[in-house]
Amino acid sequence: MLLPTSASIVIALLMGIAGVGFVLWQLKRVLAYDQGNDVMREIGAAIQEGASAFLAREYRVIAIFVVIVATVIAVFLQWQTAFCFVSGAIASAGAGYLGMYVAVRANTRTASAASRGLHEGLRVAFGSGAIMGMSVVSFSLIGMTLLYLIFNDDPNHLTYITGFGFGASSIALFARVGGGIYTKAADVGADLVGKVEKGIPEDDPRNPAVIADNVGDNVGDVAGMGADLFESYSGSIIAAATLGAALGKGETVAFIGLPFLVAAVGVISSLFGIYMVIGKERDESVLAGAVSNASLTAKCVYYLSQYVSRIDENASLEDLLTALRRSVWGASVVILGLSLLAVLMSGLHFNYWLVIVVGLVAGNAIAYVTEYFTAYTEKPVLAIAKATQTGAATTIIQGLAVGMMSTALPVLITAFAILISIWLGHKADGTLAAGLYAVALAGVGMLSTLGVTLATDAYGPVADNAGGIAEMSHLPKEVRHRTDALDSLGNTTAATGKGFAIGSAVLTALALIAAYITAAKIDGLDILGPTMLPGLLIGAMMPYLFSALTMMAVGKAAHEIVMEVRRQFHEIPGLMEGTGKPDYAACVGISTESALREMIVPGALAVIVPIVVGHVLGKEALAGLLVGTLLSGFLLAVMMANAGGAWDNAKKYIETGQYGGKGSDAHKAAVVGDTVGDPFKDTSGPSLNILIKLMTIVSLVFAGSFGSGWLNF
Amino acid sequence: MLLPTSASIVIALLMGIAGVGFVLWQLKRVLAYDQGNDVMREIGAAIQEGASAFLAREYRVIAIFVVIVATVIAVFLQWQTAFCFVSGAIASAGAGYLGMYVAVRANTRTASAASRGLHEGLRVAFGSGAIMGMSVVSFSLIGMTLLYLIFNDDPNHLTYITGFGFGASSIALFARVGGGIYTKAADVGADLVGKVEKGIPEDDPRNPAVIADNVGDNVGDVAGMGADLFESYSGSIIAAATLGAALGKGETVAFIGLPFLVAAVGVISSLFGIYMVIGKERDESVLAGAVSNASLTAKCVYYLSQYVSRIDENASLEDLLTALRRSVWGASVVILGLSLLAVLMSGLHFNYWLVIVVGLVAGNAIAYVTEYFTAYTEKPVLAIAKATQTGAATTIIQGLAVGMMSTALPVLITAFAILISIWLGHKADGTLAAGLYAVALAGVGMLSTLGVTLATDAYGPVADNAGGIAEMSHLPKEVRHRTDALDSLGNTTAATGKGFAIGSAVLTALALIAAYITAAKIDGLDILGPTMLPGLLIGAMMPYLFSALTMMAVGKAAHEIVMEVRRQFHEIPGLMEGTGKPDYAACVGISTESALREMIVPGALAVIVPIVVGHVLGKEALAGLLVGTLLSGFLLAVMMANAGGAWDNAKKYIETGQYGGKGSDAHKAAVVGDTVGDPFKDTSGPSLNILIKLMTIVSLVFAGSFGSGWLNF
Repeated sequence: MLLPTSASIVIALLMGIAGVGFVLWQLKRVLAYDQGNDVMREIGAAIQEGASAFLAREYRVIAIFVVIVATVIAVFLQWQTAFCFVSGAIASAGAGYLGMYVAVRANTRTASAASRGLHEGLRVAFGSGAIMGMSVVSFSLIGMTLLYLIFNDDPNHLTYITGFGFGASSIALFARVGGGIYTKAADVGADLVGKVEKGIPEDDPRNPAVIADNVGDNVGDVAGMGADLFESYSGSIIAAATLGAALGKGETVAFIGLPFLVAAVGVISSLFGIYMVIGKERDESVLAGAVSNASLTAKCVYYLSQYVSRIDENASLEDLLTALRRSVWGASVVILGLSLLAVLMSGLHFNYWLVIVVGLVAGNAIAYVTEYFTAYTEKPVLAIAKATQTGAATTIIQGLAVGMMSTALPVLITAFAILISIWLGHKADGTLAAGLYAVALAGVGMLSTLGVTLATDAYGPVADNAGGIAEMSHLPKEVRHRTDALDSLGNTTAATGKGFAIGSAVLTALALIAAYITAAKIDGLDILGPTMLPGLLIGAMMPYLFSALTMMAVGKAAHEIVMEVRRQFHEIPGLMEGTGKPDYAACVGISTESALREMIVPGALAVIVPIVVGHVLGKEALAGLLVGTLLSGFLLAVMMANAGGAWDNAKKYIETGQYGGKGSDAHKAAVVGDTVGDPFKDTSGPSLNILIKLMTIVSLVFAGSFGSGWLNF
Repeated sequence: MLLPTSASIVIALLMGIAGVGFVLWQLKRVLAYDQGNDVMREIGAAIQEGASAFLAREYRVIAIFVVIVATVIAVFLQWQTAFCFVSGAIASAGAGYLGMYVAVRANTRTASAASRGLHEGLRVAFGSGAIMGMSVVSFSLIGMTLLYLIFNDDPNHLTYITGFGFGASSIALFARVGGGIYTKAADVGADLVGKVEKGIPEDDPRNPAVIADNVGDNVGDVAGMGADLFESYSGSIIAAATLGAALGKGETVAFIGLPFLVAAVGVISSLFGIYMVIGKERDESVLAGAVSNASLTAKCVYYLSQYVSRIDENASLEDLLTALRRSVWGASVVILGLSLLAVLMSGLHFNYWLVIVVGLVAGNAIAYVTEYFTAYTEKPVLAIAKATQTGAATTIIQGLAVGMMSTALPVLITAFAILISIWLGHKADGTLAAGLYAVALAGVGMLSTLGVTLATDAYGPVADNAGGIAEMSHLPKEVRHRTDALDSLGNTTAATGKGFAIGSAVLTALALIAAYITAAKIDGLDILGPTMLPGLLIGAMMPYLFSALTMMAVGKAAHEIVMEVRRQFHEIPGLMEGTGKPDYAACVGISTESALREMIVPGALAVIVPIVVGHVLGKEALAGLLVGTLLSGFLLAVMMANAGGAWDNAKKYIETGQYGGKGSDAHKAAVVGDTVGDPFKDTSGPSLNILIKLMTIVSLVFAGSFGSGWLNF
């Protein structure tokens, strides 16, 4: 029985709705946990308030931006695309809001749950991450499938849906770039005055910027990462469907349906993976119940429960990491089976299943390499730690060298994944176009288990915040040990998550470029074509310009926080003694305002440059521009993320007592490395993911409006 | 009267011979200057000895390398290409040897001449630079034209001559990469023990690594820069001729002759530019002589003498800079006139003259932008200096941001130069191939005045050494003031020279890529072709890997120097007191050995990767690889060179007394920036020029041997 495309779409819609069901259930479950004592509630309330203030302000600006862009699209293109654009923005913003909403409520609950046990704490924090992960997947699927069904009768429906991707990209721009500037400005600002000038510890409630800093953790790794991957997830499916439409013949265009179907079964796999962490362990009484009353649900729960990871009280970092990895791998195994079914039911060539496998393997391999280059148990970080002995300069040189070196394997993995995908697609259907479709499908495969992989990322800041709250509210030592363990786990997953985010961004952007070239009706895009080389060069330059702007933005925004924190220490009586109350909201407000202001120039560049190049130099030059940005952005992003992660962990390694430990000269040098790495890994690096995707989706949306440029060849 | 191609070749040969005549005359003139007192002679002898030791050791390794590669070429390709390869290596090595020979002899003479006046010192140092500049130009021209004439009757003669470029590239690899590692290892090693541990000043004769450091200055900026530009100069002419041959119809292939003719008239222009600096100022008695005996030579000398720059004793850095700039601009004006004549006499379209103008303007514009981003009178460096106040981390972040920002204009200039060149060529002859020929010709135009532009670079280390010698031999204060002025001038020209070197490398590599694509008989090189994207990705990664390796190499080699210097201070009695004599040769030997050892891996990568990719993934993938490397290498090279230059000058700015001056915390932070910048600007950054050209010329030489790869599409 072959599945018609519309059936695949409906299945995807239903799975999206199932995902929302999970999100609501999990939301209720997480919020039901107790919030701990009064101090914890108070701190939690301040963080919630700060996050709300940030989101309210940011969403106001986004609303204006969305209205303007939607109007432009409606006037110059079609109202349908504008409608899809607004839908994409709302879906992504909604998922981000939900993720943030629960993250800033799960932190106190995690700290409180940790006092009852390690696995209990992990359940709450990971449950919060799972809400983010599943919201992203579900909202994206529901949005795209509904739009597909609404515009089904219009032959241009896939063109309109690219607007959904553009909407998602716009939110990602604000969340990643604005959020990235916000989080590091608050972090650096808090540290510079608090730790350095005043000598008070990190996460000290007397520091007026401490709440801004805590909010920032969530802004960066929950909202930012979520929006980034929402964009990749939607973009890869849109690209695959668009390329599939160009391939398909006849009534049933299986090529369009397959990416949706793979995404749909990905929801099941993700839920299984999530269950492996948050589920209850096997309990013989359940078995008894299952056998006795023979309820199907009870039976399922029993059989599934044997896959739940066991985490006992003395679990090491390695054990915790294994538990999370098992959940991702478990989800991967399930998706392998289900996607084979999907490919067979679509009636497409077996090779397309292999392509999905390639995408999945590549994503995991890149994450693994990232871990190697940023973990302090491995050579690269140890070499940086050793270089701290000869001072800050050698620390920086070694870190940059490690970052550069770390690009080799992710690039080779990606290159081979692309090569094999193209080859498999080409073998299956005999055309290069099928090969490019296969590349897009590999991207869909890589992102199919996003529900659970994003959960492992979005879990991090909750654990981080929980640690801070445990510290500030003076919880017992063993609780803090548990929150520390959960926090370390979050740091490791944050680094690998970044690798995964970049890898998926590259595949998505590549598929979108192919879709753009199809949509712009370019044939024969010679690399030595008259406007191609200038396009490639300017494109390769964009990530450098963009990174320069975002790095400088962090500096400026941090400077404003420093001024405000100094002012408060100076003007508020008794602040240092703990009798005066700091004005947390002022710091949150300043970080928010300056982050939004500083992102205007880089953000505008990302949107305007493709449109200008497309009109002035023509659509071929624009293709070159996109490829150039993709190449140079990929390299720079990996370099920055991994150098930043490696410096961070080199510092942590020294803080375990190596090379003189905290306070030694080696530690001071390591702190310099870590500080340089902060904007690398949390602002500029991740922002490049957005740059490469946003420029591409803008080009795809406006593809029809570009000609051959002003120069006449 | 139209000029046949063979006439253009012969004119180029004759101009090359004229250049050699100038070199010999100038050599005699510089060596005739006195070498100063005994202390100066002694130091000078040590530097000469060190340089000889380095060159002897390096050339031995090069000889082995050349023999092996020549054998491979002779066996797998043709003996003629092997012959050309050896010729290219010998010509470049010869020019480098001559340049080094005079540079390490002109240093004492410059210091001595400076005691008689500023212009006198400039004449000697610049005269030495001019020998390097004119040797490069002449040896390259003579070599290529002789080979052209030797193989004239063979239809493949241009294919053979690509071997000359490969030979030149091989020398450049050793001189730039090996030399780059050598110079920074010696520099960092000398500073770390001397200045930091022992507290003795820079250029102190007690420091065992001081001679290695002085030799290193020449190795990097004379031999390294010379070989780099020898490669670009030869490569751009070869590429233009190869692309021209594909265009030309009929007996007289003017397209082949034009690049040689432009290079030939460039010799005249360069000589005029050089004369403007080293000539004698207008003297009425010469006029009287000229009028009375009416000798043509005397008349010429008189009329030319009014263009000589006037440099009086109180000349500021700005005045000196203007004098050098005038000479480059003077040469540019002359070439504009002469190349118009060349284009007209070739019977080619007027547009090709415009293309030469585009190349010249682009080269100067890139140099100007580089100066803006690295001069401490301008905003970018001042921003870094300001960032030193908040510590090393902000210094590094700001410097990296400046480096990244500084890529924008050079890229835009290059992109537009390419675009306009392609457009002009396309308009002239109606084909894209003519457009690519025009790009190559723009490269030839940019490099046509190389004789004088390289002189302004290669002059730098002579002045630097002269300053060191003046310091070590305790010359009077006013002499040291003069050598300091000359040294500052050299630092500025070194930064702009790097910008020029990168810009010309990019145009050359691009032209060579076009020649490769022609030679490999690839038609229709779709950017989304099956193996193109993997090629592009791997190519874009190469500069990162290469830079990581070279940065780590500097660290390792410097470590060995540190060990040796420490050993000598420990084991040689009375060394610190000035009674014991340090073993300079040991440090030179260690730097040499470790530099040659550490360059093996990056050097081998540059040669092997293109050959492997060409065979395994096929010739299309290789084209992608080359474009990818070009794009990412260009950006990374500009970023590294400019960040390094900017950090260097931010430190110098603080040393003028700003932000607390020497010894302040701001200065310490600036030193960290400068130290990070050292391998950036003197090793890894410039080495990327070689990487992009070498990979391309290797591909061009082996172009005929590549097929469609192992994967079957």
